[in-house]
Amino acid sequence: MTGTLWGIGVGPGDPELITHKATRLLERLPVLAWPAPLEGEGFARTIAAPFIPAGKTEIAIRLSFAPDRADTDAAYDGACRAIASHLEAGRDVGVLCEGDPLFFGSFIYVLARLKDRFPVAVVPGVSSPMAAAAAALQPLTLLDNALAVIPATAPDARIEALLQASDAAVIMKVGRHRARLAALLTRLGLASRAVVVERATLSDQRIVALSDSADLSYFSLILVHP
Amino acid sequence: MTGTLWGIGVGPGDPELITHKATRLLERLPVLAWPAPLEGEGFARTIAAPFIPAGKTEIAIRLSFAPDRADTDAAYDGACRAIASHLEAGRDVGVLCEGDPLFFGSFIYVLARLKDRFPVAVVPGVSSPMAAAAAALQPLTLLDNALAVIPATAPDARIEALLQASDAAVIMKVGRHRARLAALLTRLGLASRAVVVERATLSDQRIVALSDSADLSYFSLILVHP
Repeated sequence: MTGTLWGIGVGPGDPELITHKATRLLERLPVLAWPAPLEGEGFARTIAAPFIPAGKTEIAIRLSFAPDRADTDAAYDGACRAIASHLEAGRDVGVLCEGDPLFFGSFIYVLARLKDRFPVAVVPGVSSPMAAAAAALQPLTLLDNALAVIPATAPDARIEALLQASDAAVIMKVGRHRARLAALLTRLGLASRAVVVERATLSDQRIVALSDSADLSYFSLILVHP
Repeated sequence: MTGTLWGIGVGPGDPELITHKATRLLERLPVLAWPAPLEGEGFARTIAAPFIPAGKTEIAIRLSFAPDRADTDAAYDGACRAIASHLEAGRDVGVLCEGDPLFFGSFIYVLARLKDRFPVAVVPGVSSPMAAAAAALQPLTLLDNALAVIPATAPDARIEALLQASDAAVIMKVGRHRARLAALLTRLGLASRAVVVERATLSDQRIVALSDSADLSYFSLILVHP
């Protein structure tokens, strides 16, 4: 019998926002893998740390912060060979993901490589748009609203088309795109409905005005409320 | 000192997908309110039941299934008067919501009525799109994808515009709209990328083809994967 590959969402940052199902698996699974920078333990591992008992076999999926495609593929290929060897030996493996595994999650790359060879299950997690809306106390969507979730890297014309087709929006991973996005939202008359949330649910969470010129981390998003 | 109003997401259906923060509050808060049909306890209350100790004060927000606007307003007005009386007396009140409180959540109507009078906090929850993607083992979004979240009640032209502007989509609360949406997705050449998930994470969860003509409950959605 081969083991099962588990994608485990660990939520947006506050360890208390992990689900009971996820923590039960963190307790039970013998092998845990997690994406990480070239050194250190990575955000998902840090979130889950209070629930990981000593003595697990752990696999770091080492990704550089500004990776080229070939490096990223090689990192996932290598990690998936290690994961597959445990699964072949009958050991279940959990892959930790910040937020939700299938919503912009690194688990998708593991899933693509291993889903045809092993049983797979996914534990959904609380995602950053919901965490940011909770921090800002702003509705994401209500009634018949349509919501667009847009990566900050999208070109202005594409973001504009999505904003115009929807009632509310989340622009993900704002970071260094803040000034360009603020100009675009202002031009579209949406600035008064927008707020920036950085590192939602973490102890250094910030809610800042769109016009604020402070540097933002990658873990920041703009909510355009309905 | 007044009490704090808590919006508490209890996730998509499986009680194990409630967060630790939510269950800690279910244990601690003296008063819990929950939306419900005219009789019975309501979906959010059912999800949370394993974590609710005996002896809580509970407030049912009674909503008819096909409500008119005035009835709905009256139901929320009445429930919010009862909630406010507890908050004024210094008792914290938790309002339970299936999924996430601010993502199409009924908590939004309570928030609108009480946010200027009392301290408020929200505990985000796992939402049905993430639960459905986990059930279907399909990515919701990856890399630079844009995602549209669209209510099934939207007119065809609006759904078409949103689908064309995005890479992936979730059409929420499909129910009796299935045949119309299947025809639309087929016309747009998207049927092969679409799957229907009903009652994700519950024991009677179903994953059905878009072409399947079975009746669907309100708790069903279509994933159009990237």
